[in-house]
Amino acid sequence: MSTDTANRIHIEKATTSKISQVDFNNLMFGRVFTDHMFVCDFKDGKWQKPQIMPYQAMTIEPSARVFHYGQAVFEGMKAYKDEDGKTFLFRPQQNFERINKSSARMAIPEFPQNYFFEGLEALLKLDNEWIKPGVGSSLYLRPFVIATEPAISASPANEYRFMIICSPAKAYYNEPVRVLIAEKYSRSADGGVGFAKAAGNYGAQFFPTSLAQKKGFQQIIWTDASTHDYLEEAGTMNIFFRINDKLITAPTNDRILDGVTRKSVIQLAEDLGIDCEVRQITVKEIKEAAKDGSLKEIFGAGTAAVISPVSAFEHAGDVFEITAADKSYAQLFKSTLLNIQHNLSEDKHGWRHEIK
Amino acid sequence: MSTDTANRIHIEKATTSKISQVDFNNLMFGRVFTDHMFVCDFKDGKWQKPQIMPYQAMTIEPSARVFHYGQAVFEGMKAYKDEDGKTFLFRPQQNFERINKSSARMAIPEFPQNYFFEGLEALLKLDNEWIKPGVGSSLYLRPFVIATEPAISASPANEYRFMIICSPAKAYYNEPVRVLIAEKYSRSADGGVGFAKAAGNYGAQFFPTSLAQKKGFQQIIWTDASTHDYLEEAGTMNIFFRINDKLITAPTNDRILDGVTRKSVIQLAEDLGIDCEVRQITVKEIKEAAKDGSLKEIFGAGTAAVISPVSAFEHAGDVFEITAADKSYAQLFKSTLLNIQHNLSEDKHGWRHEIK
Ligand SMILES: Cc1ncc(COP(=O)(O)O)c(C=O)c1O
Ligand SMILES: Cc1ncc(COP(=O)(O)O)c(C=O)c1O
Repeated sequence: MSTDTANRIHIEKATTSKISQVDFNNLMFGRVFTDHMFVCDFKDGKWQKPQIMPYQAMTIEPSARVFHYGQAVFEGMKAYKDEDGKTFLFRPQQNFERINKSSARMAIPEFPQNYFFEGLEALLKLDNEWIKPGVGSSLYLRPFVIATEPAISASPANEYRFMIICSPAKAYYNEPVRVLIAEKYSRSADGGVGFAKAAGNYGAQFFPTSLAQKKGFQQIIWTDASTHDYLEEAGTMNIFFRINDKLITAPTNDRILDGVTRKSVIQLAEDLGIDCEVRQITVKEIKEAAKDGSLKEIFGAGTAAVISPVSAFEHAGDVFEITAADKSYAQLFKSTLLNIQHNLSEDKHGWRHEIK
Repeated sequence: MSTDTANRIHIEKATTSKISQVDFNNLMFGRVFTDHMFVCDFKDGKWQKPQIMPYQAMTIEPSARVFHYGQAVFEGMKAYKDEDGKTFLFRPQQNFERINKSSARMAIPEFPQNYFFEGLEALLKLDNEWIKPGVGSSLYLRPFVIATEPAISASPANEYRFMIICSPAKAYYNEPVRVLIAEKYSRSADGGVGFAKAAGNYGAQFFPTSLAQKKGFQQIIWTDASTHDYLEEAGTMNIFFRINDKLITAPTNDRILDGVTRKSVIQLAEDLGIDCEVRQITVKEIKEAAKDGSLKEIFGAGTAAVISPVSAFEHAGDVFEITAADKSYAQLFKSTLLNIQHNLSEDKHGWRHEIK
């Protein structure tokens, strides 16, 4: 860390580490946090001096806007370590830009780029032991912003808190997932906030997802709210369909999150000589392809899950099982991505961001 | 309070009151809170013993689900005092049922009816001095539920906090409002959570509303997300249109909040012999009625604002000024409602709920 950064961030180190209490072979996603967290408050019209402090509970007024009006956005990113102990982020500029896009839509002030990167870097140095080397291990980073101003009028807050908390992770979904295609519920509206990582988008999916889970499906593939004819994305993953040897994924729009993994898969497909179409896909088309055998794979793509194969989908009472293709695209993209992320292969697009 | 209730709620009284510091003639909405708050935690699969304690900040983990996934719902209700010092709530059963409907949609466990009412009653007795008599004064009550479990996996939490905080209020909008009719942004999707008082629905409106405000309009009237042809509701009010002597309001559906004030106005219209149609209304129809002079009034109806006349609306660059009708319906409903709420007139539907 340069002296300059050190001056910019006020750092209070944890006196002891919790790391020895953590079983890194048995991690449940997002339950264990590292020794430090990054905190930066917005007040009097500007972001105040950023701080790193021991991970701890915080004090907040019951009237804070976030509790009442969901004025909150977040990001999800991962830090990886190679066998030499070098630490990398994957395309962090994308997450930086996206959190500010999300913030703008939620009337939250944008966060400065230098604070974002210096905060991440300082945290990753302090909590470096928490990043385990090896493909499959990572440190999940959760930047988020909440409206803290204690006043329950329904208007944008004047005070916010930006934080980064870190949680050691294994891949999110280990098993192939069975998914249900949405026919009644929806995730977002045209002209709404679906493209933003706005907190409320996620809580709104819990109930429909719990209904799907009761029917034996772990996830929902959302369709457009107006017609339910078009396939959009899953709760925390963008979705790819492989018909014969062609890959198809929906274009992003104001309902769909512009996923970093999605755009990386699209680029890797080009690199690997796989034809990838970005276009609207109907439920009808996928059901027909499943019937005539041309639907070879469906997989989700997202930071938490990396690449998650779909083994079955349900729509209007019809269930289609998808037999894993040998030499699956899912497996190919997953290993290609993980190899880049873990510094095991060439990084021709400059996606790795080393923490020095 | 019965001994039974007293046993059920653990009460810790504030040692001093802040009331003498409050200027009741100069209240900004939702900034000042009374001496006490109600708190009830959900854990181990059930709601724990409810508590009333001095109003204070709380301690919460940065990984609490509410911050990340907006798993949060709320209600808005008011307590009124008559000149004899009797305290009333207005149709509180409606708010109780609605918060549980909102909770169900957000995968939050429902709150027990006896805790809800006993909590309100105990609070209103302890903070009774904060309810000022006289039409226009009230104590705004904000029940809300937040997901507190410290784990950032995207699934329903296992721990929640239900709270009630109270803030002395004057009417929310004093001036007639100028509104913009939504053409691009939307508030909610079919199959979404618009009918719920889910926190995220509100934060999502702040940015489009701030754009409207820059153009000189305080509020947005939302239209359906698919076509933007149908008028739905405003940010915190349902909307009524008066064409000649007929009142029209949109039917509720899964995008629109089923407002208590709205349903009370519909009933009062019947009582007063005013024809009120509940049906879909197009933007086109309202613009034509504005042009030919048959549009006499537009007003919003909601707990915070009571009845709020609309003095102008904009759509597709056309601005229509609405000259206040003398003998306006807005004024008639407002005084009729306030008289019932403040125990100044007969309560033939049993809407008043006295706190004894
Ligand atoms: C709704 C949604 N879609 C897709 C994704 C995948 O995006 P990314 O690849 O940037 O993690 C995520 C997770 O971030 C998400 O929340
Ligand atoms: C979106 C929305 N519409 C309408 C209303 C009016 O409902 P009520 O009359 O129950 O306060 C509110 C406020 O509660 C609201 O938040």
